[in-house]
Amino acid sequence: MSIFESIDRPTLLLNEKQARQNIAFMAEKAAQNGVRFRPHFKTHQSAEIGEWFRPYGVSEITVSSVDMAEYFADHGWNDITIAFPVNLRQVQAIDALARRIRVGLLVESTESAAYLARHLTAQADVWIKIDVGAGRTGLPWQQPEKILPILQVCQSSHPLHLRGLLTHAGHTYGAGSVERVRQIYAETLQRLESVHAYLSQASRSPLELSVGDTPACTLVEDLRGVDEIRPGNFVFYDAEQTLWGTCRPDQMATAVACPVVAVHAEREAVVVYGGAIHLNKDFTTYQGQRAYGLVALPEANGWSEPLEGAYVSSLSQEHGLVHVPERWLDRIQIGGLLMILPAHSCLPVTALKSFLTLEGRRIDTLNS
Amino acid sequence: MSIFESIDRPTLLLNEKQARQNIAFMAEKAAQNGVRFRPHFKTHQSAEIGEWFRPYGVSEITVSSVDMAEYFADHGWNDITIAFPVNLRQVQAIDALARRIRVGLLVESTESAAYLARHLTAQADVWIKIDVGAGRTGLPWQQPEKILPILQVCQSSHPLHLRGLLTHAGHTYGAGSVERVRQIYAETLQRLESVHAYLSQASRSPLELSVGDTPACTLVEDLRGVDEIRPGNFVFYDAEQTLWGTCRPDQMATAVACPVVAVHAEREAVVVYGGAIHLNKDFTTYQGQRAYGLVALPEANGWSEPLEGAYVSSLSQEHGLVHVPERWLDRIQIGGLLMILPAHSCLPVTALKSFLTLEGRRIDTLNS
Repeated sequence: MSIFESIDRPTLLLNEKQARQNIAFMAEKAAQNGVRFRPHFKTHQSAEIGEWFRPYGVSEITVSSVDMAEYFADHGWNDITIAFPVNLRQVQAIDALARRIRVGLLVESTESAAYLARHLTAQADVWIKIDVGAGRTGLPWQQPEKILPILQVCQSSHPLHLRGLLTHAGHTYGAGSVERVRQIYAETLQRLESVHAYLSQASRSPLELSVGDTPACTLVEDLRGVDEIRPGNFVFYDAEQTLWGTCRPDQMATAVACPVVAVHAEREAVVVYGGAIHLNKDFTTYQGQRAYGLVALPEANGWSEPLEGAYVSSLSQEHGLVHVPERWLDRIQIGGLLMILPAHSCLPVTALKSFLTLEGRRIDTLNS
Repeated sequence: MSIFESIDRPTLLLNEKQARQNIAFMAEKAAQNGVRFRPHFKTHQSAEIGEWFRPYGVSEITVSSVDMAEYFADHGWNDITIAFPVNLRQVQAIDALARRIRVGLLVESTESAAYLARHLTAQADVWIKIDVGAGRTGLPWQQPEKILPILQVCQSSHPLHLRGLLTHAGHTYGAGSVERVRQIYAETLQRLESVHAYLSQASRSPLELSVGDTPACTLVEDLRGVDEIRPGNFVFYDAEQTLWGTCRPDQMATAVACPVVAVHAEREAVVVYGGAIHLNKDFTTYQGQRAYGLVALPEANGWSEPLEGAYVSSLSQEHGLVHVPERWLDRIQIGGLLMILPAHSCLPVTALKSFLTLEGRRIDTLNS
């Protein structure tokens, strides 16, 4: 446990071996299905971890911001989709990037398409964002006629290259069961195909289909109906994906090591140094309770299985309040560490800025 | 609106004039009550904003981490309470700090007190943390006999100077009404006094009383029963304090300017660039709904009153989904800005790392 001895504050641990296995699993699945693998790098945000994808022939990636695109372009990636409704206030930065590499943009309004047509000097791929039911962003799949004006703007504009239709079926994250995830994926595909059929006459070139949520990409066997998949979370998975059956507990590749600062046995509560500024206040549901993370014990090679019945019950700025059933309390002491398996794995990466591998090596990210 | 034109990403705006007025209000209130004002600097985390307290004679402060204590010690503050259960894994850093300045530590177990007694070489103040009902940290006020062993450790240890009893009645944040906040404060004081009375015979020196939540310090008129107050949030207030009547809307001194990237009028939804990594996923309740923030429009001198009925309904990593009633939609366009008044003001400060004043000046923080 020597690398744990030096930990004096909330620290993001990475099981490198497991993360590499998760990458291999998804890359091989994409290859078997004959679909392009364009992984979302917003989960790890790390140039070094990005390199772990190269042996599988990955050369196209997804990111969630212009800053992240610039960072990965600086690290040798030259085909990047910025999977976020294009931010017109960053058009100059986007144009500069499109002069260096192939950039994909998400468009969901005629106004944005027209603005890009007027302000871009370099060519960019345009993906039209379709809402297949998540209700966050995108044009509603039921009204494909609304997409025609965007198609026309793209087709009459030199810098805009219409690439295809893209969706993020984010509602798989709230599906709650493996069966429901598979249903949502089948619906997603049907809905995308119906939009595709409507537009195919109006489009001068074939339109590709891009999908990409971790639950569906993990659980659906047959992904052959699309051109590319863009999952991100699978590289680490997390407590929620474990609870919902997307992955096994041992497939979780990150944990936040948190110093124990108080133990209140009479109320089955442990207080750790590790709060909202380290984990972000993102929660899932565990045993009917709001849970900001599950809980494991440090072990020589990493961390234990999640402790049955234990979870992070609340977070304030620096504090984590952890419910720990009585039977585990004799394993926990003030000055020791608890390993928090975050509800969602992406947000602690931004908050904690770098990883510490179980071999004691630091891995930087965009924010380091 | 010239300073807003250059904003291309989520940006933390600060109304400096209002923040200075908020500081003046609380400093004068403390002075009128004859209690020491030891403001919590975790809200602003900024050396420059810290200086705005000096004209009121403030020389003692509160922080929430050892890092923050070191930062403010480097900026000339030499009496700092670290209001977090002492993290034994940082004892060397604490000891180094205690050699430079006067440091106050929070202790809530005999183990921690004994560990400090063995490992500190410089003297530190010890505040015993009392739980008056919030149920997060601290020793239960109903069992003062549990405190005696800590008292004994402190009194037989050279480096530990027992200073008093400290509480954070964090449940005022969930009180929901002005009347209930005042009730909780009255209870808090009674409970602290009962612990104080129990311990006064055993203690060799008088024990001070320290309290400090913004709702009570703002709303309770008579604060004379304690030695010091430690509010922090009042410097900016926020949406929750406004909704609960702790402050007026115009007393909120921060907002996050977010680029508008999509408008979906048919579902009264606006999508902004501004998500969980900018605001943190912290919410309050507005009109019965989970609200990550209220919403205002940019104005020449800052931002408007909150738009009636509008709120941030969900956050993902980079996206904010904003519910905007139809009547406001013609004021909002893609490429413009929305001003998000965060549910709680402390967390976006950590996430966004610096402020932009309405005069266009950047103010750094600990994380800049």
